[in-house]
This record gives sequence, structure tokens and C-alpha cells, in this order.
Amino acid sequence: MPGKIKLFVVKIGGNIIDDNVRLNEFLQQFAALPGAKILVHGGGKLATELAEKLGIQQVMIDGRRVTDEATLRIAEMVYGGLVNKQLVAALHPFGCTALGVCGADGDLIRAHKRQHPTIDFGLVGDIDTVNVPLLDRWLGQGFTPVIAPLSHDGEGQLFNTNADTITQEIAKAMSQAFHVVLVYGFEKSGVLLDVNDEKSCLTQIDFEQFQELKRKKIITKGMIPKLENAFSAVKEGVRRVIIGRAESLPQLIDGTSGTSIVRDRYENN
Amino acid sequence: MPGKIKLFVVKIGGNIIDDNVRLNEFLQQFAALPGAKILVHGGGKLATELAEKLGIQQVMIDGRRVTDEATLRIAEMVYGGLVNKQLVAALHPFGCTALGVCGADGDLIRAHKRQHPTIDFGLVGDIDTVNVPLLDRWLGQGFTPVIAPLSHDGEGQLFNTNADTITQEIAKAMSQAFHVVLVYGFEKSGVLLDVNDEKSCLTQIDFEQFQELKRKKIITKGMIPKLENAFSAVKEGVRRVIIGRAESLPQLIDGTSGTSIVRDRYENN
Repeated sequence: MPGKIKLFVVKIGGNIIDDNVRLNEFLQQFAALPGAKILVHGGGKLATELAEKLGIQQVMIDGRRVTDEATLRIAEMVYGGLVNKQLVAALHPFGCTALGVCGADGDLIRAHKRQHPTIDFGLVGDIDTVNVPLLDRWLGQGFTPVIAPLSHDGEGQLFNTNADTITQEIAKAMSQAFHVVLVYGFEKSGVLLDVNDEKSCLTQIDFEQFQELKRKKIITKGMIPKLENAFSAVKEGVRRVIIGRAESLPQLIDGTSGTSIVRDRYENN
Repeated sequence: MPGKIKLFVVKIGGNIIDDNVRLNEFLQQFAALPGAKILVHGGGKLATELAEKLGIQQVMIDGRRVTDEATLRIAEMVYGGLVNKQLVAALHPFGCTALGVCGADGDLIRAHKRQHPTIDFGLVGDIDTVNVPLLDRWLGQGFTPVIAPLSHDGEGQLFNTNADTITQEIAKAMSQAFHVVLVYGFEKSGVLLDVNDEKSCLTQIDFEQFQELKRKKIITKGMIPKLENAFSAVKEGVRRVIIGRAESLPQLIDGTSGTSIVRDRYENN
């Protein structure tokens, strides 16, 4: 879609946040991306470690963390504070005017408590709206939003919200006005045909291949929701989703590393 | 100075942050202040409690906390995360579009490591600049900045910075463009002639009275730097400083509670 400004929405997870050398390498590359960009981060092992040190038990249901009051406080501290502010401070020397926020700041991400027929996930928020005009304005003023995975309901309640989901919802919402390239930083090179062989990484994957590889149990576990997110994103306007190592950011973007999911160029936008 | 828009800069400390009922009362009053306003907060006992739970020893020199790496991380978590995000979330229901930031966000507060001939205060920042155009823009867009007491050097280092000092520097810097009223929330009704009698609160205090009461040891301890800050603020353009109970905010502003330090109306601004 010519005329739209390119926007990079990049998500980094725990594996790189916990590794200062790789993180610094990534931040330099991220800051060097031309034009508009948004960084969304998780919290990595830090949240789990802090909870352990404070003796807060974490309940998991189906691989998802149940968020009680104490766990939410950990998320506020680690995601909203420690990780967010350290990323912001670390981006400035690379010429990137970072603005660290969570979903409550400026009413950026509204959500409601997750409703589930059998499981109470606690203080977990499912996203209702992303404040596109706000992000648009910040980007236009030269800021790089750095977003912690917390949302709010506008009535005083903060929620824990999965960073992959926040990234995807921001990417979708921003694709109304931008040519969005979404990058999911990951601990592997991309989608691997053989999980033990980094060289078996697929350069591209389309929805039919995904279904087939899922059927053959070649794509399993955490990669499934990641790819479902990716296909959902391109279906709703994101131009390209790339999954790979965050610290190979230039290669992910020029297509020499990672796995891309591309919006069909003939499809209407 | 006619023509200047009024701006309230309000600082709250630990005593109210640690008390949910009083805090909520204050936030409702704060949100109801007409027009432009900025909230600066400390962290209260939460930082000390977290440090204790994590077994981090805190070193104090002359009543000031020495900030090592571990203590700075506590400040990032408690001030930058927990307290900041909870205040932001709690302000929205009162119709106040809060934007929670620290001094690194958007390059809001630049500082350098404190230089002292004999004491190394560690990662404590003395403020160089407050980004007035940035605050001005946020206020103009209807945001209420909620500011955590952290600054940065622009080279990747965050600093712990006293919340009273941040408040004062913001108030001074903003008084170039605004008619600034600075409110220091405090655990007493104001400046007391008898520390055990809340009714002995002075309505106003001028510099000569301050010097005399200091000489007579009626004003002592923590109140001295607080008042020095206040006189410094009015000297550099702030119109009025009020010290009193944060949860009496309307009374502090209408002059029926608290102690005021007023800029001489005949003085040039």
C-alpha cells in the first residue's frame, strides 16, 4: 500500500532481556531502524526470580500464569519499572528518544478481566482497544514507545497482559495508518523443520504450510500460538511478520534470517 | 503575572502512598484540580520493605540513602513501576488522563552523578535540566504527568533522585511559562510552632521568620531542607509553595490549611 509510512513493531522476550550483551547489541540495531518504531517487552526470568525471592507462589494453568494481587505487583515492578526503565535509559545513547509506558499511561491499552467458562485467570486483561491516535502522535513527535505488558480497565485496575498479544494488537491497530512490519524476537532462528537444527529454518511460511506442519507435529508447543498470532496479524492488515533472533534484527528485516509471514500482495488492504 | 496559565505541581510522599484510604481521597481531590497539573511521588516504606525482604542492606549517610546497584533496582521497581503505575491507574476513574513517567522517559530529566568531596552517594543524580517543552506539550494535550523520582544521564545510566528536589526543579523550570503553585504533601498540617500541636500551624512564613525559627530550634530536622527548597523555589519564579497534608488539598489551595510561602508580589518575575 504505497503512501503509508513504515512502522516497525518489535517484541523482545525474556531470553534476550536476561542477557546484557545480546540485549545491548539488539538495542543498538533497534535504535538504528529508520523511522517509526515501537518496542514491546516481556520480563523474562526476572519476574519469576523476584516472585521466588519474595516467596510468592505462581499458579500455572495450561502454561499460562494465573495473576493474583501479589503476582500483579511483581509484574508492575519488573515489567512496568525495572525492565521498562532500563530499556528506556539504554536506548538514549543510541540516539533513540524512548518513552517507556504501560497500557494505563495516557490510556494506551484498555482491557477487561479475562472471562473463561472454567478457569479464573485472575488479574489478566484481554485487550479491548489500543489508543492509535496516542501512539501516532508520539511517533510523529519522534518518540519511540517502549511498552510494558500491562493494560488497564480505566476504572483503576491494572492487568497482566501477554506481551505477544499486546504486540499483535498494537501491530494490527496501527496498520490502519502504517505499513506495519512486526518482529517477534525469539530464542531460535525462526520456524525450524528440525528443532535441533538451526539451519532447517524456513524463510517463509504460509497458512497452508502451517496447517500441514502442525498436523505432522513438526510445529508444536509455544510456536503454535506464536504463528497463530502472526497469521491473525497479517489477516488484519499487518504487512509482514518476522520471527527470529532479536539480535539479528537487520538480517530479519532484509530477509536473510528468520521466518517471514507475508500479507498476500494481491489481497485488498 | 497575568496571562500565565496556572499549573499545580504536587508532591506526595510515603506517608500517604502507604495509606490506601487517604491516598484515594487525595487522588480524587488532585484529579478535580482545574487545568494543568503534575504529580511527583516518592516511594514510601515500600522501597525499604522490599529491600529488607530481598536482604539488601541500605547504607545511610547524613540521613541520605546511598544508592548502590541493588538499591537502584529497588527504586526502578518500586518508584518507576509499582507506585507510578498504581497512581496512574487510580487517577483515570476520576477523569484524569495520567501519564506515568520517570526522568529517562522522553529525556524528561537529565542529571549527573552527585559529586561530593568526601562521600560517594553512589547512583544518585543531581539534576541538570528539566525538559520544559516536553511537559508543556503533554499538559497542552490534556495529560497529567505522574513522575517517579528517577533521572538519567542520557548515556544509559539511571539515577535515584530525591522526589522533593525533582518537584522543586520541575516547579522552577515550569515557572518560565506558567503561574506555578507548588504543593508539598507532608505528614503534618504544615510548619508547626509546637511540633506536638497541629493547631500551632503557621498560615504563612517568610524568609526572615524561617531564619529566626531555625535559630530558636523551633524549625528543625527534615523541615529545614523542605523550607529551603520552598524559598529557593519562590526565589526562582514559583508563585506560591504550600506545605501541608496532601489529603487536605482543596484547603491547602484555598489557604485554610497548610503553610504558604508566597513570592513577593512586588518582585519582578
